[in-house]
Amino acid sequence: MIKPLTVELGDRSYPIHFSNSLEALRTDIRALRASGKSLRTLADKGALQAQPDYLTRAGFTEDEILVLPAGEPTKSLQYLGEALSFLAQGALNRDSSVFAFGGGVTGDLAGYTAASYLRGIDFYQIPTTLLSMVDSSVGGKTGINLPEGKNLVGAFWQPQAVYIETALLQTLSPREFAAGMAEVIKYGMLADLSLFEELEDLEQLDAHSDALSGIVRQCCALKARIVAEDEKETASSGGRALLNLGHTFAHAIENVAGYGDYLHGEAVAIGLKMAAQLSVELSQIDASTIQRVEAILAKFALPVALKSPLPVEALVQAMTKDKKNRSGKIRFVSMQALGKAVTTEGIETKLIEQILIDGGANR
Amino acid sequence: MIKPLTVELGDRSYPIHFSNSLEALRTDIRALRASGKSLRTLADKGALQAQPDYLTRAGFTEDEILVLPAGEPTKSLQYLGEALSFLAQGALNRDSSVFAFGGGVTGDLAGYTAASYLRGIDFYQIPTTLLSMVDSSVGGKTGINLPEGKNLVGAFWQPQAVYIETALLQTLSPREFAAGMAEVIKYGMLADLSLFEELEDLEQLDAHSDALSGIVRQCCALKARIVAEDEKETASSGGRALLNLGHTFAHAIENVAGYGDYLHGEAVAIGLKMAAQLSVELSQIDASTIQRVEAILAKFALPVALKSPLPVEALVQAMTKDKKNRSGKIRFVSMQALGKAVTTEGIETKLIEQILIDGGANR
Repeated sequence: MIKPLTVELGDRSYPIHFSNSLEALRTDIRALRASGKSLRTLADKGALQAQPDYLTRAGFTEDEILVLPAGEPTKSLQYLGEALSFLAQGALNRDSSVFAFGGGVTGDLAGYTAASYLRGIDFYQIPTTLLSMVDSSVGGKTGINLPEGKNLVGAFWQPQAVYIETALLQTLSPREFAAGMAEVIKYGMLADLSLFEELEDLEQLDAHSDALSGIVRQCCALKARIVAEDEKETASSGGRALLNLGHTFAHAIENVAGYGDYLHGEAVAIGLKMAAQLSVELSQIDASTIQRVEAILAKFALPVALKSPLPVEALVQAMTKDKKNRSGKIRFVSMQALGKAVTTEGIETKLIEQILIDGGANR
Repeated sequence: MIKPLTVELGDRSYPIHFSNSLEALRTDIRALRASGKSLRTLADKGALQAQPDYLTRAGFTEDEILVLPAGEPTKSLQYLGEALSFLAQGALNRDSSVFAFGGGVTGDLAGYTAASYLRGIDFYQIPTTLLSMVDSSVGGKTGINLPEGKNLVGAFWQPQAVYIETALLQTLSPREFAAGMAEVIKYGMLADLSLFEELEDLEQLDAHSDALSGIVRQCCALKARIVAEDEKETASSGGRALLNLGHTFAHAIENVAGYGDYLHGEAVAIGLKMAAQLSVELSQIDASTIQRVEAILAKFALPVALKSPLPVEALVQAMTKDKKNRSGKIRFVSMQALGKAVTTEGIETKLIEQILIDGGANR
């Protein structure tokens, strides 16, 4: 039995369930119905195929479920419109609730749908991928993509509860599981040396491992703490931005490679190795740390360099356009020590280019 | 010189300028540019045609302006997408600002665009219609329509400032001016007997009247006070819902007639007369008040009954589906006294039907 965790956000605090999550979900659904509330679920098609009974066992009826295509293109204005119309066609009022059943794409779209319908109704997350369990389902960032770029549109909208059932990961492909591990490793690197060392010491870790739930909870606890301190990423340094360790590189890789070539977690893995190298170049950590980072990424079947070269100019340009920049400066996250990330601005483009080339980019 | 007003919302408080608003706007734009911020304006085509120089005199350049078609169909997901892409194509970051130049449609769309882009950037309102000056530009309700209904999607997103220049109303059509007066009269009925009496005593009021700015400010002050007390319309009775006096009827009329047949203010005028009758039927006010309400609406060239009959069943059904209802009950706003509105639930359908029929509906 792993205890629930609370994300501390004042009157918007909420629990994350880790054990008996299906039972917690069923109880909550029963209570919502008892108080006369309407419910709808946006569900990823792939997740439904892998877990055909989960939502009905939880207490949903077929006509309460909108099935969404798997994949990043679903995070679009088009599917936002379909999801909103699905709620409107049921004449849902302000007391209604929206659930997300799927990975990050589903959670981001469903959360933004809930944030937008009637200027905001209640939202619940049932993540089905490792990546969404440790990252996107916690913290209230919701949104969709534009043709011009990823996650350019959205809202901060905290869920009322998150139901994490790591047993669901047993139907996840090894590649998707590995992609989620990139975010797990990221937490060790940015905030928790002991988590990093635990991952180094593990013989192996997969969806059947006893250790998994505990590790997922540790990641959620780290994220919850950071989110509680800087919910809307407004801290001038550190804060929620630290969660972007490796992500400035990763977003540029995804952007230039075209979405689909790399899973997000795979791009993050390459980005984490680059962030480690950046930290060494800034004399923040010892060069040997790069090897430790590479070794742990490789152990979990993650890439540490580009599969095929991408043009360095395009990668740098993508970073310059990154929406996280303020007043034109690229903000990087690096490590002061393994397990302790910091934000840094004003890094020379030449240095970034060198790191990208060392990671497989070309001129 | 009419003093600015402050909408008191803690750290989200903001000023509404009434005199020398163009100068205030120009000063603010200069300051935003000086601190390196990017600006964009969403502008109503009709407002631009009526005031071709206003935005350039304020300090905007042509390429910072996105021109939007006039009319309710612009409050759609399609134009939301166009507006968001307009910001993204300029690579606008989180420090950027969006301005609205136009009536309620433009303000609602631009506000929701600002609320959604990068999960929220700064927003400023330059209302150009009487209705948007006294109502939609103040209070932070933003949003768009769905095929299933009006204002079903949006966000609470307060502006940083509102610039009201009543001189702009001199190019407004008499019909649009009258439509705005319906909301002005509404404020008198719901919260300010002396405003109602002032309107009764006026010889006339048009866009050239000296009294206009003061009356607009009075309306904004009333709305600001109500919004400050119940920003997100969560009060179980009274509160922000009082601003919907006449609107349950009006929304049903607009919905059944099809948008475009009645201007919003015209439907509100009919709804205000119906709300007065409802108040009499509930023994809340004296029957003579209906005549006073009818007289003042007629004085400002507003309708007090349907232009042609609409089916009463369809009107009642539209009310039942109104998103403001909670747990299936229709909530009406009526008057305990002229100048003092209250919310009431559980009103008999038969009574509502009779009022609709008296107002020109048929079976």
